[in-house]
Amino acid sequence: MKRREFVETVIALSAIPKQGNWKSWRVNGARVNKHLADLSQYGANPQGGVSRVAFSDADVAGRRFMMDLMRTAGLTVSIDPVGNIVGVRPAARSGTLPLLFGSHIDSVPEGGNYDGDVGSCSAVEVAHILAERGYRNRHPLQVVIWCDEESGLTGSRGFIGDLPQDEIDRPGRDGVVLAEKIRRIGGDPARLAEARHRSGSIAGYVELHIEQGGILDERGINIGIVEGIVGIHHYDVTLRGFANHAGTTPMDRRQNAMLAAAELVLIVDRVVRSVEGRQVGTVGRLLVKPGAPNVIPGQVDLTVELRDLSTEKIERLWTQIHEEALASAKKYGVTLDYTLQHTNLPALSTPAVRTVIADAVQGLGLSSQVMPSGAGHDAQDLARIGPMGMIFVPSVKGISHSPLELTRADDVTNGANVLLQTILRLDQQ
Amino acid sequence: MKRREFVETVIALSAIPKQGNWKSWRVNGARVNKHLADLSQYGANPQGGVSRVAFSDADVAGRRFMMDLMRTAGLTVSIDPVGNIVGVRPAARSGTLPLLFGSHIDSVPEGGNYDGDVGSCSAVEVAHILAERGYRNRHPLQVVIWCDEESGLTGSRGFIGDLPQDEIDRPGRDGVVLAEKIRRIGGDPARLAEARHRSGSIAGYVELHIEQGGILDERGINIGIVEGIVGIHHYDVTLRGFANHAGTTPMDRRQNAMLAAAELVLIVDRVVRSVEGRQVGTVGRLLVKPGAPNVIPGQVDLTVELRDLSTEKIERLWTQIHEEALASAKKYGVTLDYTLQHTNLPALSTPAVRTVIADAVQGLGLSSQVMPSGAGHDAQDLARIGPMGMIFVPSVKGISHSPLELTRADDVTNGANVLLQTILRLDQQ
Repeated sequence: MKRREFVETVIALSAIPKQGNWKSWRVNGARVNKHLADLSQYGANPQGGVSRVAFSDADVAGRRFMMDLMRTAGLTVSIDPVGNIVGVRPAARSGTLPLLFGSHIDSVPEGGNYDGDVGSCSAVEVAHILAERGYRNRHPLQVVIWCDEESGLTGSRGFIGDLPQDEIDRPGRDGVVLAEKIRRIGGDPARLAEARHRSGSIAGYVELHIEQGGILDERGINIGIVEGIVGIHHYDVTLRGFANHAGTTPMDRRQNAMLAAAELVLIVDRVVRSVEGRQVGTVGRLLVKPGAPNVIPGQVDLTVELRDLSTEKIERLWTQIHEEALASAKKYGVTLDYTLQHTNLPALSTPAVRTVIADAVQGLGLSSQVMPSGAGHDAQDLARIGPMGMIFVPSVKGISHSPLELTRADDVTNGANVLLQTILRLDQQ
Repeated sequence: MKRREFVETVIALSAIPKQGNWKSWRVNGARVNKHLADLSQYGANPQGGVSRVAFSDADVAGRRFMMDLMRTAGLTVSIDPVGNIVGVRPAARSGTLPLLFGSHIDSVPEGGNYDGDVGSCSAVEVAHILAERGYRNRHPLQVVIWCDEESGLTGSRGFIGDLPQDEIDRPGRDGVVLAEKIRRIGGDPARLAEARHRSGSIAGYVELHIEQGGILDERGINIGIVEGIVGIHHYDVTLRGFANHAGTTPMDRRQNAMLAAAELVLIVDRVVRSVEGRQVGTVGRLLVKPGAPNVIPGQVDLTVELRDLSTEKIERLWTQIHEEALASAKKYGVTLDYTLQHTNLPALSTPAVRTVIADAVQGLGLSSQVMPSGAGHDAQDLARIGPMGMIFVPSVKGISHSPLELTRADDVTNGANVLLQTILRLDQQ
């Protein structure tokens, strides 16, 4: 054996994974946090967060940055027809279903540096560690950066075949049709059907994300194990009274829609709190017409949002709210009409995946809590085609969708380690 | 005496007023109602009302129509520097103060055919009758059509010297400065000081107006004798909580400004109703921020409007509302700040004028009720420089500032007759 051959053999031998001690593998915390900081330069806003709205120039630049990172992590990168970025680490054996993990990097306008980004950078970091360790994965591993999460889970809905054609052809508020935007980021809306994945076509999907609520931070818990993503109902309510002169109409001759609306707002709060559980209810949109200080409101339009892991519970709460609000409106000579404007079905995570995440957390010596996700995530779509799990890391003070959003570096590292150990466990099952 | 001389003498003799029977004089009801219908052609809107906003082409045309009517009624017509139309019937004797009566003909956008118009046409009708009867008035009589009542009593404020120069120079929402608009209708803003009338410079002012509320119509009463025009306070309130994710923020971790706002709306209603009297309180403007269904409201801006004939009572009510609202806001972790944004002082009518109106009503065999005016009127400005009285006629169903506004022809005639008999009595006092 010549010296050159000898050296090559030694290198090859050292690259053979010591798969036996994979439970001790850890991510490079400094690296993942640096990548997170680097990513936050794309669409950086003056308030210290990012405005990296999907399909914007900042989004396109951020996606390019992520694709470079993915290639460095040994992944083979492509963009699917919907515009999702997919980085593949092929399986050591054939005949297995792909195991997916990832998140998104688009933000709300004037958003923060952690929502979506923590999960995206950590997924790439996991792939990077597997490459460095020369891990021989049984399943094809796919790191996915979903496109346009914030305005309605566009990428993940396209991935599961739930993106109707009329939505593709419809102009957004900016007047640009979605098809054109998808082309802008390298997708191919004409081939959308090819992006579709049927139920049973994946081994599983795991997403790491910031909590966006304050429970973990407040209680000093490292990791949230998501039991499911809540269902959301939006009830659009119209209260109609009679607009009249606020000076000449005596108090006992009014049909003031605002009084009925005020009662309804308080009824929502009281009814939602009246039963055990973690359901939430909010009136966040409320428009008063005509809206002048000297005119008794003739109409109020508002939206009641209810969220819970159980659709049945949401419906039960609404029935009670509606009954009470109707009686109260009647008292004011005001009519109440509503339409169920929007429904998101709850998506429970897969118990077996939850167990694997809990094992990973325990193996890392971290604390955890099982909790619902009050926010929507791409994971809720993936749950419809295969096993799903989600890992939460703390959001300081629960602030999200704000430049003040913060997840501490240690928590990012913890989350990425839980993701790594979860993927390793799932791959070997 | 030649035949010609005889004829002239007969004519002259027949023109000598039979002043003794003036209590039996009545307006020409058909004529005043016809003029009202004719006036409604200027700025007629498709809904059947008028959009005759001050200074618009429709307003200018309507004013021209009124000036022609006034001349036909024997008045000498001029436009004062503010833009008010003044029609004078000189006094038979000198050394007396002028007695004024009139109203306005500008409307709100999409207004009705009676607000202002009834009083304006009736005032001209009164002058017309006096001319036909050859009435020898002791006081100079002035029929005044005030300019721009609806957007803030511009004409009457100019008349009493309460129109600040910065308001004259300020562009409106349409970008046009008030001075330019005043010129457009024949006023002369450079000579504004000359329009000013000092306290004690008039014998009195009487205005006939539609009630704009439903009390007279509901009770079947012919005439309202206005005891005063209410004072108005506008309190601009800001409630500040913390905007947060409506899905991820548990119910017990919220600082929901909308809940505090809802409580405040109900507190205003309850406190205003809790004491005797005809005070009114309204929250007609309420803005929720950011205003999305899935965001807990971080801020609500609203206006509390309170009206009463007593400023002291308004202040007492506000003190109680503020105390209760503050305690309630605190309960929700929400702060409450307010500014007293706008104040209209109450203007009581002059008891002696009220008595004269009551005499006139009785002489006509009509029913009447003493009542406050919940709406503002030019009369409130005139009250600051001399005796003031107001006559209300019924508004069907209390509807006003709407194409559905209606005052029945008989009620118009009744009101004009009360005005006629009131002016005759006041002139002879």
